[in-house]
Amino acid sequence: MKAVYPGSFDPITYGHIDLVERCSKIFDEVLVLVMENVNKKHFFSHEERIEMVRCGVSHLENVTIITYSGLLVDFAKANDVKIIIRGLRAVSDFELELQMAHANKAMLQELETLFLMTDTSNSFISSSMVREIAAFGGDISKWVPPCVQEEFRRKLGK
Amino acid sequence: MKAVYPGSFDPITYGHIDLVERCSKIFDEVLVLVMENVNKKHFFSHEERIEMVRCGVSHLENVTIITYSGLLVDFAKANDVKIIIRGLRAVSDFELELQMAHANKAMLQELETLFLMTDTSNSFISSSMVREIAAFGGDISKWVPPCVQEEFRRKLGK
Amino acid sequence: MKAVYPGSFDPITYGHIDLVERCSKIFDEVLVLVMENVNKKHFFSHEERIEMVRCGVSHLENVTIITYSGLLVDFAKANDVKIIIRGLRAVSDFELELQMAHANKAMLQELETLFLMTDTSNSFISSSMVREIAAFGGDISKWVPPCVQEEFRRKLGK
Amino acid sequence: MKAVYPGSFDPITYGHIDLVERCSKIFDEVLVLVMENVNKKHFFSHEERIEMVRCGVSHLENVTIITYSGLLVDFAKANDVKIIIRGLRAVSDFELELQMAHANKAMLQELETLFLMTDTSNSFISSSMVREIAAFGGDISKWVPPCVQEEFRRKLGK
Amino acid sequence: MKAVYPGSFDPITYGHIDLVERCSKIFDEVLVLVMENVNKKHFFSHEERIEMVRCGVSHLENVTIITYSGLLVDFAKANDVKIIIRGLRAVSDFELELQMAHANKAMLQELETLFLMTDTSNSFISSSMVREIAAFGGDISKWVPPCVQEEFRRKLGK
Amino acid sequence: MKAVYPGSFDPITYGHIDLVERCSKIFDEVLVLVMENVNKKHFFSHEERIEMVRCGVSHLENVTIITYSGLLVDFAKANDVKIIIRGLRAVSDFELELQMAHANKAMLQELETLFLMTDTSNSFISSSMVREIAAFGGDISKWVPPCVQEEFRRKLGK
Repeated sequence: MKAVYPGSFDPITYGHIDLVERCSKIFDEVLVLVMENVNKKHFFSHEERIEMVRCGVSHLENVTIITYSGLLVDFAKANDVKIIIRGLRAVSDFELELQMAHANKAMLQELETLFLMTDTSNSFISSSMVREIAAFGGDISKWVPPCVQEEFRRKLGK
Repeated sequence: MKAVYPGSFDPITYGHIDLVERCSKIFDEVLVLVMENVNKKHFFSHEERIEMVRCGVSHLENVTIITYSGLLVDFAKANDVKIIIRGLRAVSDFELELQMAHANKAMLQELETLFLMTDTSNSFISSSMVREIAAFGGDISKWVPPCVQEEFRRKLGK
Repeated sequence: MKAVYPGSFDPITYGHIDLVERCSKIFDEVLVLVMENVNKKHFFSHEERIEMVRCGVSHLENVTIITYSGLLVDFAKANDVKIIIRGLRAVSDFELELQMAHANKAMLQELETLFLMTDTSNSFISSSMVREIAAFGGDISKWVPPCVQEEFRRKLGK
Repeated sequence: MKAVYPGSFDPITYGHIDLVERCSKIFDEVLVLVMENVNKKHFFSHEERIEMVRCGVSHLENVTIITYSGLLVDFAKANDVKIIIRGLRAVSDFELELQMAHANKAMLQELETLFLMTDTSNSFISSSMVREIAAFGGDISKWVPPCVQEEFRRKLGK
Repeated sequence: MKAVYPGSFDPITYGHIDLVERCSKIFDEVLVLVMENVNKKHFFSHEERIEMVRCGVSHLENVTIITYSGLLVDFAKANDVKIIIRGLRAVSDFELELQMAHANKAMLQELETLFLMTDTSNSFISSSMVREIAAFGGDISKWVPPCVQEEFRRKLGK
Repeated sequence: MKAVYPGSFDPITYGHIDLVERCSKIFDEVLVLVMENVNKKHFFSHEERIEMVRCGVSHLENVTIITYSGLLVDFAKANDVKIIIRGLRAVSDFELELQMAHANKAMLQELETLFLMTDTSNSFISSSMVREIAAFGGDISKWVPPCVQEEFRRKLGK
């Protein structure tokens, strides 16, 4: 069984990586989908985000990194994927995620969203929090792998 | 008894329409108020939003479409309206709505906000989700009436 | 338009009374329905609860106190009531209330539940909290009218 | 891959059945585990609950009904199950479920809990609500299959 | 400044102990108050709960264990305590806690409730979950200190 | 004991002021920290926000107004502050606040965040709501002190 884990990964965190690792033990193949959305502003470019995801999950054999710029349901149809993976940290996540899961199912009946809780030690990490701490020169080594730390240094010129 | 149902309706969805239909059975007159807020950016223009609301609720006799660009409480005072109608879908809605209801009541003691739950089949629809799906060329016919679909086609040039 | 406000009122609080007062200005007639449920244990007997509701809302002309021991939808059908009134204080209320509203609507399509926020000064009152404070001899005069205070004194032998 | 769906199923509802059906398409084998907990009071006996689950999911080939009276993690260890399935309806569900998922993972590291949202049309059903409506003689045919309705009639002598 | 940390501690967990340790660094004196409530059923007796709290926090110098059977505000008045400490784990905690904090402040204006988040590694522990796992013979050594484990063994005869 | 109460105060409201007053009775010294964040857009300038905070809390002796443009943890380290104060109004606040508290503690172990509930009469006020009401010429005198009202008049040219 093949599962897709979509996100903007701006940047990938240890929370995301933990989730991919756990999914790689459950599913035959895990597709980490770095969404390209021209309407959304990201801190890192599409290429940078892909590159950081690559270095973050390269140790996992049955994990493939892909990219797509349309609707998730269209990707799923075109690639015969029936399972979406999403992480749940908090209640505020939960409601938006439920909305999206229902919308996706309404557009493609056989598409199921499976939610995994994030590990407690990662439950308060978010990409936006990492970006904010990095912007002020804070230490982000607990939350993102070395290649992401390096990318921040390059980007912020610090 | 007269009730006002305010919103930005960017665009109106079947969820909104279901709510207006149900309110039109409870109240003598329902005013659907398309808020004009120059400080907020909308996808559709004020005129487009009004036009889509019009086509969405034109089958209901005791429903009037109006517009206003100031504070809701000032509208209520000027038009002798004592009831605001709001739909509740999820917990995240709920808190902001409660805040606004309290603020409005603090400014105009006799103004009451009545909340109706959205129909379960519409509970995951939001205007922003419809806009995002339409932007990627997805099928939005389950969530908005034909005239709104048409307006998206015109606007997006698709 | 007639509306029913159901509850166990064990006992009625100033929060409930505030809600009834506000509803009495919106609707032609408000039926305060003291539910009798033999499967639920109450601190006050059915008769005591009715009596306290009576003294709490006796100053309101278009309010009638009634009692019923079956399903709310059956009451609504038999009495041609189309509107249920419920107060919302907090998120935890909200979800159970939404569930009940959906269940009632599924059983009787034309039955609508309208939610009103409780007044901020009453938002943390609950009947169970009043009972607990009274049990320890605490002062409950801020939350319940004199007749309820009296009933507690009688009941608790204090 | 084998997954277990534990619950008390007091009684099984169309919401549960929908979830089992969807899981049966995702996993090779789905074990519906009717928990026996001598410390909890149930309306239906352990045997009755098993029997109703059986009639509710008998149309699904790769679904097995089992029972266990100990800790879920011990069951998982003994039966080499690595995936727990749970349904999510609302925010209040969500937090307790997250707590249990974390506790189970703390006791058995490789045990993963996967959450599926309940279908919107079933999102307000709960076994306890069905029991309450049935107790008052209400129509529960929208929420539970005929064999459960029959069991209620037998049990309630109606 | 003196602070009181009230609870039923049925039994005390590492989550509670972590909170007491952190408070002992903030306040001059921390009173751990083991509430006696004859209306509530506990698994452990009042004496057993006190004894387990004692062994759990005996390493902290400025911590005193006390007991009280009335209202928290009466205790605060009698002992000149102005600060209540409560731990917050989840949203469901949050609302009930807020209600109690408001009720206590309404009864005693100068009484403040300060909330501390529980440590992430303890955020899913609750006394009730520990009791349930212990009842089934599960390993609870990650969540409660040795003396509590011992007390469970004695009590459960295992 | 010294505590810091950080915020953007855009503008300070009676809700903030109430919190500072209560903290000034608990702690020896309260530092109100007006955060300067060049990445965030504010309605009022940094200087205006500081000035309004000053006029709002000038009646409190042990309260000092400060400003900082880096990470809160760096401020805490440099100034030997071990306690952060935050107000809690609603569930949506709660989760983001918990995330920040965990992130801060991860960066500086001895840094504790203490949460206080906002007073019920202020629980629905937010700076953004005040700004929106002021923008439409509404009366904000219930929520902000005269000097803030004056600043709005000057700024909005009304």
